[in-house]
Amino acid sequence: MGAAIAGRVVGAGHDVVAWNRTREKAEALEGARVAGSLAAACDGRDVVITMLADDAALEEVVFSPGGLLESLGGAVNMTMGTHGVAAIKAVAGAHAAAGQAFVAAPVLGRPEVAAEGRLGIVSAGRREAVERCAPLFDAIGRRAFDAGELPEGATAVKLANNFLLGCAIEAMGEAFSLVRKYGIEPQLFHDVLVDGLFASPAYQVYGRLIVEDAYEPAGFTTLLALKDIDLVMDAAELARLPLPSGNVYRDRLLSAIAHGAGDHDWAVMAREQAQAGGLE
Amino acid sequence: MGAAIAGRVVGAGHDVVAWNRTREKAEALEGARVAGSLAAACDGRDVVITMLADDAALEEVVFSPGGLLESLGGAVNMTMGTHGVAAIKAVAGAHAAAGQAFVAAPVLGRPEVAAEGRLGIVSAGRREAVERCAPLFDAIGRRAFDAGELPEGATAVKLANNFLLGCAIEAMGEAFSLVRKYGIEPQLFHDVLVDGLFASPAYQVYGRLIVEDAYEPAGFTTLLALKDIDLVMDAAELARLPLPSGNVYRDRLLSAIAHGAGDHDWAVMAREQAQAGGLE
Amino acid sequence: MGAAIAGRVVGAGHDVVAWNRTREKAEALEGARVAGSLAAACDGRDVVITMLADDAALEEVVFSPGGLLESLGGAVNMTMGTHGVAAIKAVAGAHAAAGQAFVAAPVLGRPEVAAEGRLGIVSAGRREAVERCAPLFDAIGRRAFDAGELPEGATAVKLANNFLLGCAIEAMGEAFSLVRKYGIEPQLFHDVLVDGLFASPAYQVYGRLIVEDAYEPAGFTTLLALKDIDLVMDAAELARLPLPSGNVYRDRLLSAIAHGAGDHDWAVMAREQAQAGGLE
Amino acid sequence: MGAAIAGRVVGAGHDVVAWNRTREKAEALEGARVAGSLAAACDGRDVVITMLADDAALEEVVFSPGGLLESLGGAVNMTMGTHGVAAIKAVAGAHAAAGQAFVAAPVLGRPEVAAEGRLGIVSAGRREAVERCAPLFDAIGRRAFDAGELPEGATAVKLANNFLLGCAIEAMGEAFSLVRKYGIEPQLFHDVLVDGLFASPAYQVYGRLIVEDAYEPAGFTTLLALKDIDLVMDAAELARLPLPSGNVYRDRLLSAIAHGAGDHDWAVMAREQAQAGGLE
Repeated sequence: MGAAIAGRVVGAGHDVVAWNRTREKAEALEGARVAGSLAAACDGRDVVITMLADDAALEEVVFSPGGLLESLGGAVNMTMGTHGVAAIKAVAGAHAAAGQAFVAAPVLGRPEVAAEGRLGIVSAGRREAVERCAPLFDAIGRRAFDAGELPEGATAVKLANNFLLGCAIEAMGEAFSLVRKYGIEPQLFHDVLVDGLFASPAYQVYGRLIVEDAYEPAGFTTLLALKDIDLVMDAAELARLPLPSGNVYRDRLLSAIAHGAGDHDWAVMAREQAQAGGLE
Repeated sequence: MGAAIAGRVVGAGHDVVAWNRTREKAEALEGARVAGSLAAACDGRDVVITMLADDAALEEVVFSPGGLLESLGGAVNMTMGTHGVAAIKAVAGAHAAAGQAFVAAPVLGRPEVAAEGRLGIVSAGRREAVERCAPLFDAIGRRAFDAGELPEGATAVKLANNFLLGCAIEAMGEAFSLVRKYGIEPQLFHDVLVDGLFASPAYQVYGRLIVEDAYEPAGFTTLLALKDIDLVMDAAELARLPLPSGNVYRDRLLSAIAHGAGDHDWAVMAREQAQAGGLE
Repeated sequence: MGAAIAGRVVGAGHDVVAWNRTREKAEALEGARVAGSLAAACDGRDVVITMLADDAALEEVVFSPGGLLESLGGAVNMTMGTHGVAAIKAVAGAHAAAGQAFVAAPVLGRPEVAAEGRLGIVSAGRREAVERCAPLFDAIGRRAFDAGELPEGATAVKLANNFLLGCAIEAMGEAFSLVRKYGIEPQLFHDVLVDGLFASPAYQVYGRLIVEDAYEPAGFTTLLALKDIDLVMDAAELARLPLPSGNVYRDRLLSAIAHGAGDHDWAVMAREQAQAGGLE
Repeated sequence: MGAAIAGRVVGAGHDVVAWNRTREKAEALEGARVAGSLAAACDGRDVVITMLADDAALEEVVFSPGGLLESLGGAVNMTMGTHGVAAIKAVAGAHAAAGQAFVAAPVLGRPEVAAEGRLGIVSAGRREAVERCAPLFDAIGRRAFDAGELPEGATAVKLANNFLLGCAIEAMGEAFSLVRKYGIEPQLFHDVLVDGLFASPAYQVYGRLIVEDAYEPAGFTTLLALKDIDLVMDAAELARLPLPSGNVYRDRLLSAIAHGAGDHDWAVMAREQAQAGGLE
């Protein structure tokens, strides 16, 4: 995902410096210069984009010696990965205490969508910081949503969007099982859904996977989805909010993983649900 | 709904005879003759459409003395209401035992959609019976989905579609609460959803109600929604199928009703959920 | 259960007349005279005990022609089976409208407990009616609990007691799975429970079944337990009360039945839960 | 709790050295000498007991410079607090790698029970290490349960025991609400429970709190209970195990805290449940 985004920025004519702990990855990025250190990558930049796999990686890049907290200078640190609200608040707080600019700008969409510049971007941070990032939003995505001044707000939107998708997949699993129990072909039910109330990518794409009972190769694995719902549940716990629909699909993921489907696409929740009802 | 459907059939040039226990309702239907009894309404017809509020009404119309089981003759009984699978199986079985034709053809859409001829229709029954109903499908709806030979299959599709909508509303309630806890305006989150994965009527229409926190007047009340999810749960129990997402929204409906919102639109589940998390 | 209760009443020296749709069952009761009809069984009695398998049987015995509603006379109808609150309210209302006396007195305990006169009895009804039944409580059970004037109150207590047991079995299933995942012998965990906070029959008896993974022959089958939790859920729905713990164990029962364990003891919920976590 | 346990050990005639980050707390312990540092406290000891509030405190005491990992010497580190399985595995692994002895020995019971020497103790670790701790078990508790060689096994037993209690409280809340809806006095239902299947401390103690609707002062707050169930859920996630009953009471805790009951006894789950059904 980081490569796809960087490619968009390069393609829009911006001057890009790349850094990666694995230097080969940075060198693979055509049209960008490669920095030998994080500090060098920050030097003289307007915006420093971080696109990292998880909270631990973000915290290391920001807080470790020589990290962003020391090296950012006058740039804006724009974080585009999916993180937890606690991590984002910690990073935002540290940058603010250091008088530095920070924007959370998680993206909506898969890598192939990113390569085509059609990502959605949800951004939040101090006004002037967000404005400095705006030209990049144009280069990277199809649309930027302004989520206000609190970086963790953008995080919450991203997590809540993922959460809704997980709920929809679990609910589809249940609904497909119900009609199958009464002799209905899954394809027919899929047609009904996407022709009517549910004519949207979430139901079209995941409904298709369920109809085809095809969960390999995975677009997004159950193990990653478990990490993701845990970020959601942590955000909800911090806010003292019960999410019972989240419990349901988190449990489904756990059962799927327990039954060996850790590397399957998370739509395998539907198969797991069917088995819980004696189907298959 | 019955009036809207009958109006479509009349409008398509079919010869229509109307019967209702409340004669004034039958007389209100322009272009149709009014029958003095159910038996008279059936006499010489090709298709007898029943559009009834619940299972008890259907069973009375079919099984009571002088009812459809005795009066249907050579017509096809096409049932378009939302019923339980047990009731449909009972009616289907009785008609079959009497050598009579029966089609379940529940509809997808609200009355205003019906008046415009844009309903979806899910039909199931013996092939020749369904074929005899086909010209009516053209008059009534935008599209007919063929759900096979078992009438209860069409019922299951209808119930599963409603079920998915309830799950989506509950999940939206949870997701909107999560983002609100982090300072996000509901409108912003709604924009993100319907611009992306959830660009469909279910999320557009119900997302809007949630954003506006506007649950009166109701399009579909929580009390009706409770009756509806009970039909779903009964169908699932008969099929030995757990529906945990259904449990979640059924509980939400019960809480909403317990708190006085029995006559509100069922999207009030979102407000109820917010209150469970200390919002409002 | 009816035979065990009747045996206790005979043994206490009461004059007993027995009636059963299957005459042989009535004749099997030593020390009681057999009536040829329900009306004859009621004739001149002080108390008419009904111990029936389900609501349908109760409603038939009360409401059918020649049934209790017509035949009760000056006796008290004391119902000791497990019924739904709606059925009990219907029967209570009909008796009251007819100026007849009715007491709901469901029992706590299994048939072998009944034979030993150690049942708990939860009674409710008009004071004078309950008082007329009191000598029978002494004969039948170890203790009678006075649940007030509303017969459905006694029903609710009985259902809530069963409900708590189902919740405890499901929770034990989850807890045993958790410790097994960390290498603990089930026997050790059972010892911890019943030595401490959970030193009671519910945990001793069902904990033992779980430790031994022994669910046949059944003391109480999953199919009966499903019927039972449905009575609970119906009572809760009428009262507009969500019971999420009930959802959990109802779903577990459904999965167990779907997987072929309909005739196993309902403690098989524990095995079903273990399988959902990849154990066994 | 630490003071109560230390008091029991002193009382049994053992030679005790106390250390606490807050020296006054160590000095408050009659009959024990006070060490000036953790290293000094370990010097020449047979067993070093750690009784700490949470995983962070345990990890600091073990892993920080001058901590137990460096200072334990030939003693056995016996940990009696309630911790997560991940933390216990980390500490156990580090001690094992250093050739040092470690026993997890969490306790069952409240501080007043500890003072009376009636705690239950669940111990696990290498045989020789556990045996060295055995004389202390005699001094501290009424009974020690041997949970095998894996320290995290003892942790799992402790967590699963707490989990069962939380499930029982939530289920009681639901059951009490059900009977209240049908006009039953909570005291009557409590009597039925503790006279029968549920004649155990869990139901007696918490049933009493629910009957009296008395949640202050707290024996164990909802906030602590939330921390506790999170340890349970983390242990279950690591083991790929869904715990749906845990979801239910975790959500109840979150709602209670959201509604301002963070400092109430966790039995306030029952009041929260009643409110969800429109009671109170």
